[in-house]
Parts: sequence; C-alpha cells; structure tokens
Amino acid sequence: MTEKTILLDHGSGGLASQELIGNLFLKYLDNPTLHSLEDSAVIDNQPGRLAFTTDSYVVDPIFFPGGDIGKLAVHGTINDLAMRGAKPICLSLGLILEEGLSLDELERVIISIAEACKEAGVPIVCGDTKVVPKGKGDKIFINTSGIGVVADGINISSKNAKAGDAVILSGTLGDHGITIMTRRAGISMEGDLKSDTRALHRLVAKLLAEMPEAIRTMRDPTRGGVATSLNEIAAASELAIELKDEDLPVRPTVRAACELLGLEPLYLANEGKCLVVVQGDMAAKALEIMRSTPEGAEAVIIGTMTQGKAGRVVINTPVGGSRVVTPLHGEPLPRIC
Amino acid sequence: MTEKTILLDHGSGGLASQELIGNLFLKYLDNPTLHSLEDSAVIDNQPGRLAFTTDSYVVDPIFFPGGDIGKLAVHGTINDLAMRGAKPICLSLGLILEEGLSLDELERVIISIAEACKEAGVPIVCGDTKVVPKGKGDKIFINTSGIGVVADGINISSKNAKAGDAVILSGTLGDHGITIMTRRAGISMEGDLKSDTRALHRLVAKLLAEMPEAIRTMRDPTRGGVATSLNEIAAASELAIELKDEDLPVRPTVRAACELLGLEPLYLANEGKCLVVVQGDMAAKALEIMRSTPEGAEAVIIGTMTQGKAGRVVINTPVGGSRVVTPLHGEPLPRIC
Ligand SMILES: Nc1ncnc2c1ncn2[C@@H]1O[C@H](COP(=O)(O)OP(=O)(O)OP(=O)(O)O)[C@@H](O)[C@H]1O
Ligand SMILES: Nc1ncnc2c1ncn2[C@@H]1O[C@H](COP(=O)(O)OP(=O)(O)OP(=O)(O)O)[C@@H](O)[C@H]1O
Ligand SMILES: [Mg+2]
Ligand SMILES: [Mg+2]
Ligand SMILES: [Mg+2]
Ligand SMILES: [Mg+2]
Ligand SMILES: [Mg+2]
Ligand SMILES: [Mg+2]
Repeated sequence: MTEKTILLDHGSGGLASQELIGNLFLKYLDNPTLHSLEDSAVIDNQPGRLAFTTDSYVVDPIFFPGGDIGKLAVHGTINDLAMRGAKPICLSLGLILEEGLSLDELERVIISIAEACKEAGVPIVCGDTKVVPKGKGDKIFINTSGIGVVADGINISSKNAKAGDAVILSGTLGDHGITIMTRRAGISMEGDLKSDTRALHRLVAKLLAEMPEAIRTMRDPTRGGVATSLNEIAAASELAIELKDEDLPVRPTVRAACELLGLEPLYLANEGKCLVVVQGDMAAKALEIMRSTPEGAEAVIIGTMTQGKAGRVVINTPVGGSRVVTPLHGEPLPRIC
Repeated sequence: MTEKTILLDHGSGGLASQELIGNLFLKYLDNPTLHSLEDSAVIDNQPGRLAFTTDSYVVDPIFFPGGDIGKLAVHGTINDLAMRGAKPICLSLGLILEEGLSLDELERVIISIAEACKEAGVPIVCGDTKVVPKGKGDKIFINTSGIGVVADGINISSKNAKAGDAVILSGTLGDHGITIMTRRAGISMEGDLKSDTRALHRLVAKLLAEMPEAIRTMRDPTRGGVATSLNEIAAASELAIELKDEDLPVRPTVRAACELLGLEPLYLANEGKCLVVVQGDMAAKALEIMRSTPEGAEAVIIGTMTQGKAGRVVINTPVGGSRVVTPLHGEPLPRIC
C-alpha cells in the first residue's frame, strides 16, 4: 500500500479492498478461521446454549487515555457476553471508515484490537469494511458482535434478582465517561484520569466456577451508568434497590472532574466494571473472589435488593434521609463509546 | 415519542434510548429472545458447526426501487451464512443514526427489516443503537451479524472447487448495482430497473438437501460483482475458470443503463444472486433444482472450472477469442450496499 489515507476504492470490494484485508487486517488479526476469507466463518460448536450480542462504537476521540475505540470494541462485546454468564468464543469486526482516514491511525486501531483479542483469548473470525465519503462519517466506526456459550446450570438474567440479594460493584464509578468528557472539553486534570476499559470474562468465570447458582444478575454499567443499570435491574426483577451513599467508590480525580463539569458519577459510562447481584448469604464470598482478581480488586457491596416499590432505586444518605435514583434522562452524553 | 427526529439523547443509553427501543424496535421486531433486553441474547444451541458473519450497510440512497437499506441488511447477512451451507438462525441489528434523521424514515426502515425477517423466518435477537451528531454520519448505517448452523456432511468453501465442476449463476447480472448508480446519477430509465435484493437460504437448502456432497463452493457476488467473486474462487481453488460470453444473463434495461454510465455488468453488485460451483455431472440436476425456485428461476450455467493457470478467469468470446476477466480495480463504486 502506497496511499497514506483511506480512499473510496478501499470500500468497493475489488483489489483495493483485498489489499487492505490482506496487508492490514490479516497481518494483525490472523487466525486459521479468519484466514480463509470466506462469506462466513465456520467454527466448531461447543456444548451449552449460545449467547449473541452486538455493539457499535462511535467514541470521539478515537484515542484517549487508557485506551482507544478498538480496545473498547473488543472489551465491550466480551463484557456483554460475560454478563449473561457466557464464555466468549469469537468476535466479528465491522468497520465503517471515512474517506481520508489516515492509514497510520487505522493501523494503530487494528494493532490495538489485535492486542485486546490476544490478551482476552478471543479471536476476530470475520469482518467487513465499508468506506463512506469524507464528511459522511467520522474517521472510524466499529461494530463488534460476539458469540459465547453458556454452560448448563448457569442462568443469569436481570429478572432473576431476589429480595435479600446483595448488589456488588466491581470497582470505581465513571472513569471511562469522565475521561472522554474532559478530553472533549479540552480540560486536563491533575492526577491520572483514564478509561477503565477492560475485559471482565475472567472475573465472571471465577465467580461462576465457585457459585454457579448464587449469581443471579450481572450487568455492565456502560451508557447511562450505574444509576441506569440499577433501574433496569430493579424494573426487570420487580424489586427495589437500596444503596448506601458512602459505599460508592469514586476516584478523587474523577470526583473533582465531575464537579468541574457538573456531572454525576452515577450516570457516567464505565467500560470495565460490572454490577453483580448475588444471593445475600454468598455476598462476602463473592466479594472475596472478585477482589482476588485484578479487574475486581476494588469491588464493594453497594446495596441490597428489597421488597420496596418495584423498579425503584433509592440511595440512603449519610444524614439518614433517602433520595430516588432515576435513570439517565435529558442529559445527552454523545459518543461516549 | 413526540419528537419528529432523532436526537443525540436517543443514543445516551438513558430514558430516550429506552423509549426508542420499546416504542419502535420492540414494536416491530419483537420476539421472546429480543424482548428481555439483556446484555446478550441467549438461544438454544443446535447440532452442527456454527457459521458467523457480519456486514455493515451504508447504501446511499437508503430507499431505492426494489428495496431499502433495511432489506439489504437482512438479506445480505442471511446470504453470507447460506453461502457456507449454513441454515441461518438469528441476526443482530446495530444502528448508527445521524442526529436529525426523521423518525418516519427510521420507522420505515425498521418495518422493512421486520418484513424481511418474517419472510425469511430469521429473527433479530439483539441490537444496539448509537447516535452521532449531524454531519458525522449519513442518516443511517446498519450492521447485521448472523449465526447459522452447518449440518454434518456439508463442507462448502471456495477452496473446494475441482477441475470439471460447473459454475452456475442463479440469475441476471448487476440489477442492484445499476439501480443504485442510476438513482444516484439522477437518471431514470425506461423499463423496470430494480434491486434484486433477496434472501437465498431456501434455494441453498433445497440444493443441499438433494446433493449435499456435489455442491463445492457458493458465493454471493456483491461488491466487486461476479467478476471479482469468480477471481476469488479461482484463486482459492488454484484453478482457472472459463466463461462463455453469450451465457451471461443481463436484463436489457440493465445493459442499456450500463452502456449509458460506462459500467460493465460483470463488476456490478448483486444482492440476491449466488454463484454455485457444482460437480460437473450434477450440474444439470442442480440447475433444475435452482430453476424450480422463484429466486433461481433464471439460473444458467456460465462456465467451468479448468486446469488452466491458477487464479485466472477467462471469457470466451463469440468470435472464438478469449479475454482475461480481472477483479474490480480502480473503479470506486462507493456505498452500493
Ligand atoms: N475489517 C475486517 N477485519 C477482518 N476481516 C475482514 C474485514 N473486512 C473484511 N474481512 C474479511 O474479508 C473477507 C471479504 O469480506 P467482504 O466484506 O468483501 O465479503 P462479503 O461480506 O461477502 O462482501 P460484501 O461486504 O460486499 O457483502 C471476509 O472473509 C471477511 O470476513
Ligand atoms: N436497534 C435495536 N434493535 C433491537 N434491539 C436493540 C436495538 N438497540 C438496542 N437493542 C436492545 O436493547 C437492549 C439495550 O441495548 P444497549 O445497547 O443499551 O445495551 P448494552 O450494549 O448493554 O449497552 P451499551 O451499548 O452502552 O454497551 C439490548 O438488549 C439490545 O439488544
Ligand atoms: Mg458474500
Ligand atoms: Mg454493550
Ligand atoms: Mg462484507
Ligand atoms: Mg451491557
Ligand atoms: Mg456480504
Ligand atoms: Mg449496546
């Protein structure tokens, strides 16, 4: 490839497309399944039900402290599989490139995807590449879809939470969201603000190996943040959730940046965190397991499922009052992931 | 929903997103798996290897004679599964919407997707919706990924073609590509120019039921057209392909439009056609089966796999000469699908 930028021709399905696939995608993402470049990947089936998920990523900027759009695309789809108790098997990679995108930037993203896949042990087995004219896209949009398998006996769903269950959060609130927002606002903070983008399937596998039946619900609080995910769990399980304010972990720099921008950590996107609803009497054990992993080292119990008003999330304040935590509304935080 | 257009807030993951999902996507696409709105769909596993594929659709215009971007997204992904001999099981639906897109247009696309899924018998089981600011996208981009199952004994691959095999094309050349190109050029032709977008999984199922082992290779000649797909088959199987010029079916209006625009039908995208490479002595039977289906009614044998120079596609002209058919190169036909 001698061109330095993406041309419309790279999306026409002819020789330029084949060059891009051979010289760039296969170079970094290669594996026997992808290599054959057929219409579909064919992979061995594995015992268990199938989990299937999809996410598109349009984050702006595409590179940010702690990660980039490529890492996000790999981790995010792995995490949505893990949240149903599935073992991730493989991913697809759909690219929509804007004419004029620098090939260097594209290569950096592909290298980053390859690293994330390798580190997670989950390959890209098929892909697609389209190019839109300059001004009809924005550098690069990525779709990753994923397949996983759910072992017999595992049944994770937001419907399954029961009164008395504990709600555990795997780490601090809002790191990803505030990193993108400050970056876009051109604000630089003292301290280390960076995205928490990370794959959670190993943490989930450890939990499920130890207590396959005690884990009721898991959810990754991405767009809409922990507040919105908790509302979804409360609604689906027809229970209430009570949170203790002082138990919500937020990094000092994140808190400071939130105050500066008038944002609330509970509504900020996370890309390497999960909410785990676990049978009450197993909560201490679950917490211990999570804390034994690098991705869950800062896990805390943040609340309890209760027989309160179905769908309501309340937060008990230190002074003895309580307030309702509603889902995100009317505060557009565009292109956070 | 009172708004008449898509707002950034529809992509924030909060209440506006939930409204769009509940009032629009579930309204038309509903099924028990999608309905639960979990992080991943969980579906019953079925015997056989898994096929997995992905395509993004960025066609411009989004509505065109014979179809729209939604139909294309359903048919295209079903067809990529079918080309490996897989029975399509389910699809994902990833939307990237441009702020300001009219909700009416979005609804038309979703209705069209719902119709195509119903007609094909393949449900959307999970999805994702992102919104980008006005001017950073173009109305709507769609990604569909799909899972299928490949029965034991079926082994379709572009590597598998053998010398002496016949090459069958399921119908006429270039209908989709020329429909989009004339539309974009603002040319209106006499006669009925329309996209051939169509799902081919039933035609494939019929062929495989009758002759599971005689079918070697299948490919849907989308971007790059029949010429490029034939080159890919020749390269992968390390054989040559000989075509007879007079056997290439092109509708008269398509031919006329191609002459007007200086385009060659062999390089135009098709969205409801397949190339089938079949054991030579089974070709007549395969042709008969294909012609017995509505989608293959105009099928013809267009050529033969031969022991010529590996990867070379040649066309024998009526006057006794021959010319090499190269893959598409240097003729950008952007946003055709
Ligand atoms: N970004 C990518 N990453 C990895 N593999 C890719 C990528 N883009 C394309 N591929 C692979 O290259 C091959 C050709 O892709 P292509 O999209 O041209 O096929 P297709 O879907 O059959 O055609 P069309 O997109 O026109 O319908 C496929 O095997 C696909 O998996
Ligand atoms: N366009 C769509 N069509 C069908 N279902 C959709 C669509 N968009 C979202 N959904 C469904 O709505 C639910 C919520 O989707 P959402 O994208 O908010 O979840 P998520 O992927 O966990 O979050 P994020 O995208 O922030 O990572 C999922 O069950 C998803 O399958
Ligand atoms: Mg194809
Ligand atoms: Mg997600
Ligand atoms: Mg493709
Ligand atoms: Mg999720
Ligand atoms: Mg395709
Ligand atoms: Mg999503």
